[in-house]
Amino acid sequence: MSFIPASVQSLVDQFARFPGIGKKTAQRLAFFVLKSNREDAALLAHAIMEVKTKILFCSVCGGITETDPCGICSDPKRNQNLICIVEEPADIFTFERANTFTGVYHVLGGVLSPLDGIGPDDLNIDRLLGRVKEGMEVILATNPSVEGDTTALYLGKLLKEKGVIVSRLARGLPVGGALEYTDDATLTRALEGRTTL
Amino acid sequence: MSFIPASVQSLVDQFARFPGIGKKTAQRLAFFVLKSNREDAALLAHAIMEVKTKILFCSVCGGITETDPCGICSDPKRNQNLICIVEEPADIFTFERANTFTGVYHVLGGVLSPLDGIGPDDLNIDRLLGRVKEGMEVILATNPSVEGDTTALYLGKLLKEKGVIVSRLARGLPVGGALEYTDDATLTRALEGRTTL
Repeated sequence: MSFIPASVQSLVDQFARFPGIGKKTAQRLAFFVLKSNREDAALLAHAIMEVKTKILFCSVCGGITETDPCGICSDPKRNQNLICIVEEPADIFTFERANTFTGVYHVLGGVLSPLDGIGPDDLNIDRLLGRVKEGMEVILATNPSVEGDTTALYLGKLLKEKGVIVSRLARGLPVGGALEYTDDATLTRALEGRTTL
Repeated sequence: MSFIPASVQSLVDQFARFPGIGKKTAQRLAFFVLKSNREDAALLAHAIMEVKTKILFCSVCGGITETDPCGICSDPKRNQNLICIVEEPADIFTFERANTFTGVYHVLGGVLSPLDGIGPDDLNIDRLLGRVKEGMEVILATNPSVEGDTTALYLGKLLKEKGVIVSRLARGLPVGGALEYTDDATLTRALEGRTTL
């Protein structure tokens, strides 16, 4: 589209690379930058570069942090014998937001996905096996997807061999959801996992 | 949320300022930057700053451009006696994408909106009145909203006094839309503006 100035088109292309951002949304974002004042644009550009400069991966859990080890791994109040295994660093923040988990985390950096060529060697598994000791508890909190379940099964087997207590997050009706709109797979799991009152 | 590193939170906050981007989407965007390599992040930051440096407003039409006057205003093949009036620079690209308009544009930079304190003096109207001459044709292409209609009515009156032929974009069923899902106001307009076969 030659009628869009090159620098604007270039910014639209950059935004369109983001997940879930289509061509029209990218254009809307680019025009917002265009309309915002120079200081605000500079703040955004600065924040982008600062994230790349300051953020590192925790050498213990693989989560993102500005200090190594991260604030959670180095917190003496957290239960170091309870490890929650998640796919991505962002998943840690989901747990922390809920403010109900008192253990520590371990980030896999993905899930097993043979179709995408991702095997056990591509995940942060060696370091996990180095962390766990007999009698510890591990919660497998990979996503409730085919790949997440496969990865959980694989890890569960490895971890049980090491004498670790392994669990997986419960499946069932989401709180606040409506029974009417629940899909078959979730309803089946909710029935299977019914709890006695 | 103290568990998110400050630099990441700062980037999330920056993204959340964009229109239509909520807190969760902003977090997803920030994590995408975090996961992308340093070069890609630098490209994005550079594109943001470049837009603010290179883009200026065309002194004739008020559209965005890297050269003044813009490519459309300075194109000898465009009909300079046919002016399409739009609210925002982005609207020009919508017309150009459709590739059906052969005249030139004029950007108002907004619409009349007394509730927001935007009156005629806040819009790019003086320069419009300086551009039009008797016998020229002007198409009012403000949005089909209350403010857009009010602005079109206001401008139409001013322009007719100058002996300009004034028209407004047609209202009716959107092409590809379904009659079943058409709202009452659109259907009324479609009936009023019916065309003989």
